[in-house]
Amino acid sequence: MHLLQRLPGVGEKTAQRFGLFMVAEGGQMVIDLAEALSALGETVRPCQYCGNLAEIDEEGAAVCSICRDRNRDSALLCVVAKVQDLLAVESSGAMRGRYFVLGKLLAPLEGVGPDELPLQGLLERIAVDRVREVIVATPPSVDGEATALLLARELSAHNVAVSRIASGVPHGGDLEFSDQITLGRAIAGRRAIEL
Amino acid sequence: MHLLQRLPGVGEKTAQRFGLFMVAEGGQMVIDLAEALSALGETVRPCQYCGNLAEIDEEGAAVCSICRDRNRDSALLCVVAKVQDLLAVESSGAMRGRYFVLGKLLAPLEGVGPDELPLQGLLERIAVDRVREVIVATPPSVDGEATALLLARELSAHNVAVSRIASGVPHGGDLEFSDQITLGRAIAGRRAIEL
Repeated sequence: MHLLQRLPGVGEKTAQRFGLFMVAEGGQMVIDLAEALSALGETVRPCQYCGNLAEIDEEGAAVCSICRDRNRDSALLCVVAKVQDLLAVESSGAMRGRYFVLGKLLAPLEGVGPDELPLQGLLERIAVDRVREVIVATPPSVDGEATALLLARELSAHNVAVSRIASGVPHGGDLEFSDQITLGRAIAGRRAIEL
Repeated sequence: MHLLQRLPGVGEKTAQRFGLFMVAEGGQMVIDLAEALSALGETVRPCQYCGNLAEIDEEGAAVCSICRDRNRDSALLCVVAKVQDLLAVESSGAMRGRYFVLGKLLAPLEGVGPDELPLQGLLERIAVDRVREVIVATPPSVDGEATALLLARELSAHNVAVSRIASGVPHGGDLEFSDQITLGRAIAGRRAIEL
């Protein structure tokens, strides 16, 4: 039960429900789940280029489907905080380049400094793929903005354009119910309307 | 009770609670409220320039505090759908110009066409104040975008820049939980990071 409780969003009660369900469901379901989980540990690893989830191939290399895809624009690199964000951006269909997962954001108060970020891996990726533009798609939070600024500084000497995703009123959102910072950014980040 | 039910967000039950409260509270509270309401009708009108709420002055003119404020940049005009949106943008502190309240958005399905929008009033305002930039701050919804495009077209012949507020991930928002259209706009509307 205490292992189930370590799943995100699962507390004591839910862990108990899961456990009792598995006991009641009987042998085969539990064996199948156990096999699926151990297979997961053996076959899935972070992609060695970007950090996305990847299946390990016969040669023991883990390269995700996006890094494998030759139709992607390798000169365009989207930096995200975590794999979930990569999947969200990818599902929007707006990104035709590749990704780089940082794994964490700069958070000085929690002891995460610049040294904890995989800057070296990012620089290698930029050099190898001849990246021309890095789109920093970290969340528009304090930590996300600090990380974006750090990346812009670190990359300024490397002949690559660094851009930041737009922050503003979300699609379908109401100005009336938007917070002041979001509205301030929406005004500051305004763009000419293309006809 | 049926009059109270016409207030936004007030249904039968809440109207009953309000009504019974006023009966229980007794005479003076009800008289005060009635006086305040009748004074509201006599002293407050939409501003004759922008549509914001304004108190009627001695000469019978209704000019709001923003249109009266000489420190505002009259060359910058922010177009909003409703007074609530004006108040929201104003509270962000990012707008140093003046406003223009449309009162409604283009909504062809509900029978609101271009003729229903106060385009003439907007054009007059632009001419009188020598407006150089119109910031269209209608919501990033289908109706809001359609209205923004209509305004950009109508104003294209009038020597005024027309811009749109940024749409994207809101401040503190999570990419993981953002919808695809918002993420698509956030990527499309990216900007170079200023160091």
